[in-house]
Amino acid sequence: MTIQEINIGDEASVTKTISEGDVYLFAGITGDLNPAHVDAVAAEKSFFGGRIAHGILTSGLISTVLGMYLPGPGTIYLSQELKFTKPVYIGDTITATGKVIEKNAERNRVKLETTCRNQKGDIVIRGVAECMPPKQ
Amino acid sequence: MTIQEINIGDEASVTKTISEGDVYLFAGITGDLNPAHVDAVAAEKSFFGGRIAHGILTSGLISTVLGMYLPGPGTIYLSQELKFTKPVYIGDTITATGKVIEKNAERNRVKLETTCRNQKGDIVIRGVAECMPPKQ
Amino acid sequence: MTIQEINIGDEASVTKTISEGDVYLFAGITGDLNPAHVDAVAAEKSFFGGRIAHGILTSGLISTVLGMYLPGPGTIYLSQELKFTKPVYIGDTITATGKVIEKNAERNRVKLETTCRNQKGDIVIRGVAECMPPKQ
Amino acid sequence: MTIQEINIGDEASVTKTISEGDVYLFAGITGDLNPAHVDAVAAEKSFFGGRIAHGILTSGLISTVLGMYLPGPGTIYLSQELKFTKPVYIGDTITATGKVIEKNAERNRVKLETTCRNQKGDIVIRGVAECMPPKQ
Repeated sequence: MTIQEINIGDEASVTKTISEGDVYLFAGITGDLNPAHVDAVAAEKSFFGGRIAHGILTSGLISTVLGMYLPGPGTIYLSQELKFTKPVYIGDTITATGKVIEKNAERNRVKLETTCRNQKGDIVIRGVAECMPPKQ
Repeated sequence: MTIQEINIGDEASVTKTISEGDVYLFAGITGDLNPAHVDAVAAEKSFFGGRIAHGILTSGLISTVLGMYLPGPGTIYLSQELKFTKPVYIGDTITATGKVIEKNAERNRVKLETTCRNQKGDIVIRGVAECMPPKQ
Repeated sequence: MTIQEINIGDEASVTKTISEGDVYLFAGITGDLNPAHVDAVAAEKSFFGGRIAHGILTSGLISTVLGMYLPGPGTIYLSQELKFTKPVYIGDTITATGKVIEKNAERNRVKLETTCRNQKGDIVIRGVAECMPPKQ
Repeated sequence: MTIQEINIGDEASVTKTISEGDVYLFAGITGDLNPAHVDAVAAEKSFFGGRIAHGILTSGLISTVLGMYLPGPGTIYLSQELKFTKPVYIGDTITATGKVIEKNAERNRVKLETTCRNQKGDIVIRGVAECMPPKQ
């Protein structure tokens, strides 16, 4: 969608159950093999009580919302603020939502409130994204 | 490292060449199969001139710096600001660096300036991370 | 989309450059490590002259068209006919297209002509899919 | 095996337990992140009552039978008909079988009845494959 087609209040979401495989592949891609993510014994004894997904992995679902749906293919991602408010455990089902809160047609820029919630509705990540929608 | 062991100005880095496989796996994990990442024909005709890595994938290297080195295992990641200043192409070699710019021993919190540079030294991502170092 | 929203002639497509990683992961998932797919030396001397993607891997893009776009989430896939008309080489950019050619509202069934083309426009797979669109 | 070595009635099978990782990787390769495959919450409420494998993923086991065993390495896959008769759940153990039902030595072509069964013996996919065995 171009900036002309986007309205304040527009929303899009994607949902995925975060699997152990997702966490392990992300650990492998990035090299973040922190025991919180890949050591079940240490993770069970830790503050969180079990292996959790990387915050940046969960944030990837926000990238999907922007790149695939709102604005969609052709979008240029400019910035992202992320607050990791709750842990995401392996097996949690996360819904990432982007909601347009600002648009500047002259500069072709859109701001979205970006929120990730787990299956209980708890916010696990919140923040703001800025991007440039495709020109056509 | 605990907050007592961390000093302002401390730095740590990780470096990785971003492969096609990294980009494809990240696309698969997140569902972000935007043509900019996985369609070589469309990407060549696009603004960027070739397939680029997801900004959030490159940001994962920052997670590695924090979770593995500074502060290291046991760290709780609180927030991350990201500005995607230049594209990262498949095959680029990215160095992610975290540098401590603030510490609050009472609240056990540390702020790091986080920067990702490509093999030419260009900054591709910059921002600030906040985290809680391990207690021991 | 429900059957009421679908019209004969409706089309949807997805495009992806098939990477070596795609072929290797698919080989690993299925166990089809035929030298045509994973032995570069043998493949170069073979009829095809290079490593090719599994026909069923390329067919997976048709599943994406149906499951994600037309009809989209909630679709039940009933059958698929596939003719593998040309090889797909690692690095080829494939566009899978589904086009509605028949609908039966009473039985909630849709038939789509399904075609995969490479970057030169050559048809590499053709066939017909049958599915049940979501009820709502 | 060459066409001379193949007889009508010949059979070969492969068996694999379909893991969550298989389904997630296949979703990633193809981009088919339909909730039926990767959203445990939605899938539990759906018609199928749980996350299912992509029909085309399970079909990949047929490709393995042909490409690895019957006829085996060097085979050229010409066509495949697939009827998805029952869902395959994550954790199901699938046996794919190919059985030669027709051969044409002059045109070097073989037809196989192809069947996938789950651990209970239920047919989950049935169809017919056509291929060209290796010349030597």
